Amino acid sequence: MNPKKLKCCPWCGYGTGTRYGYRTTRKQPFFGSQKPSRRAAEDRDHKFLRIAIEEAYKGVECGDGRPYGAVIVRNDEVVVSCHNMVLRNKDPTAHAEITAIREASQKLDQISLADCEIYASCESCPMCFGAIHFSRIKRLAYGATAEAAGSIGFSSFTGDAWKDAGFPQLEIKKIDDSGAEQVFEMTKGKFI
Amino acid sequence: MNPKKLKCCPWCGYGTGTRYGYRTTRKQPFFGSQKPSRRAAEDRDHKFLRIAIEEAYKGVECGDGRPYGAVIVRNDEVVVSCHNMVLRNKDPTAHAEITAIREASQKLDQISLADCEIYASCESCPMCFGAIHFSRIKRLAYGATAEAAGSIGFSSFTGDAWKDAGFPQLEIKKIDDSGAEQVFEMTKGKFI
Repeated sequence: MNPKKLKCCPWCGYGTGTRYGYRTTRKQPFFGSQKPSRRAAEDRDHKFLRIAIEEAYKGVECGDGRPYGAVIVRNDEVVVSCHNMVLRNKDPTAHAEITAIREASQKLDQISLADCEIYASCESCPMCFGAIHFSRIKRLAYGATAEAAGSIGFSSFTGDAWKDAGFPQLEIKKIDDSGAEQVFEMTKGKFI
Repeated sequence: MNPKKLKCCPWCGYGTGTRYGYRTTRKQPFFGSQKPSRRAAEDRDHKFLRIAIEEAYKGVECGDGRPYGAVIVRNDEVVVSCHNMVLRNKDPTAHAEITAIREASQKLDQISLADCEIYASCESCPMCFGAIHFSRIKRLAYGATAEAAGSIGFSSFTGDAWKDAGFPQLEIKKIDDSGAEQVFEMTKGKFI
C-alpha cells in the first residue's frame, strides 16, 4: 500500500474524512487581505521579471556575457540582480542564475535560499536548474523559453528531462508578454 | 530521412562504402606507440581518480564541504585539484566539479576546456553535468555512483535523465574498484 495514502490532510478539521492525500471537497479557507489578487500578483511578477530583462541587456551592453539576467527576491525586495558573467569572469559556469545564487548566498550569509524566489529572463538550463534545486529556492519565474534562445544559436537545453525524475517541489511559472523573447532578437548582432 | 544517415565516416578511406554513420567493418587503424595499452590507460585513470578521492577526504577533514573531489587534467598533467566548498564559501553551487571548472578556466585563462578531462570522486549531479557540458570538457571519469551518495542521505540525482535528450558527445567512464564508494562510509559520521 502506498504510505502516502495514509497521510491525513493538514487541515483536518476541514476534511471530508478521507485519508487519501490532501484533497478536500470543502471550499479552501479564505485568507482575506493576505491573499493578493490575481492582477496584483501578475503585476508583481512583471515588475521583478522586468529587472531581470534589463540585466540581460546590461550584461550584453558592457560585454560581460550573453543576454541573460536573474533577480533573487525575498519578502518582496530584490536581494541581488545579476547577469551572465561568462565572458567577464572567464567562467563557463557564470550563468545569470548561478551568479545570482552565489551573490545572494554571500549577501544573506546563508547557504539555503528557501525563503527566496528567482526571476530569470529565460528558462533555466539544467545547470542553473540544478543550482536552484541545491539552493532550495522556492519559486522560479521566467520570461523567454529556451527555444527562443536556441533560435539564435544559444543553448536550448532545459531541465525538463529530469524535472519529473523525482525532482523536489519547486513552483515554476512561465510569464507571458514580458518582452523577454525580444532580448535575443535585439542583441543577436553582438553574437552572430 | 534522418540526415545523420547521410553522413559519411570521418576516416573515409578506411570505410566499407556504407554511408550509415561511423561504423566500419574493417579493423580500426593502429596508432602505434601513441595508443596506450588498456592496462596503462586503466592505471592512468586510477592515478588521477585517486587524487580526486583524496581531495574528497581533505575537504571533509578541513570542514570545507561534503565528501566530493574533482581533478582536471590536460596533457596528462593535473591542472587543478579541488573539493566541495559549499560550507566554506557559503555557496550552494560550489560542488567539486564546478569549483574545479571555475579554477581551471581561471588558471588556463580560457572559457573552453575542450582539451581537458575531469575526474570526479562521485557521479556528477545535473548541475555539475551541465557545467561540464558548458565547459566543453571532452571526458568525464568518475568513481562512486550517485546511488552510493544517496545511501547516506546526499543527493542521488544524476544527469542521466537529460543526457539522452540531445546532449552533445562527452565520453563518460565509470571507474571500478577505486575506493570511491568508501568515502561516504568513512566520512558519514561528520554529516549524519
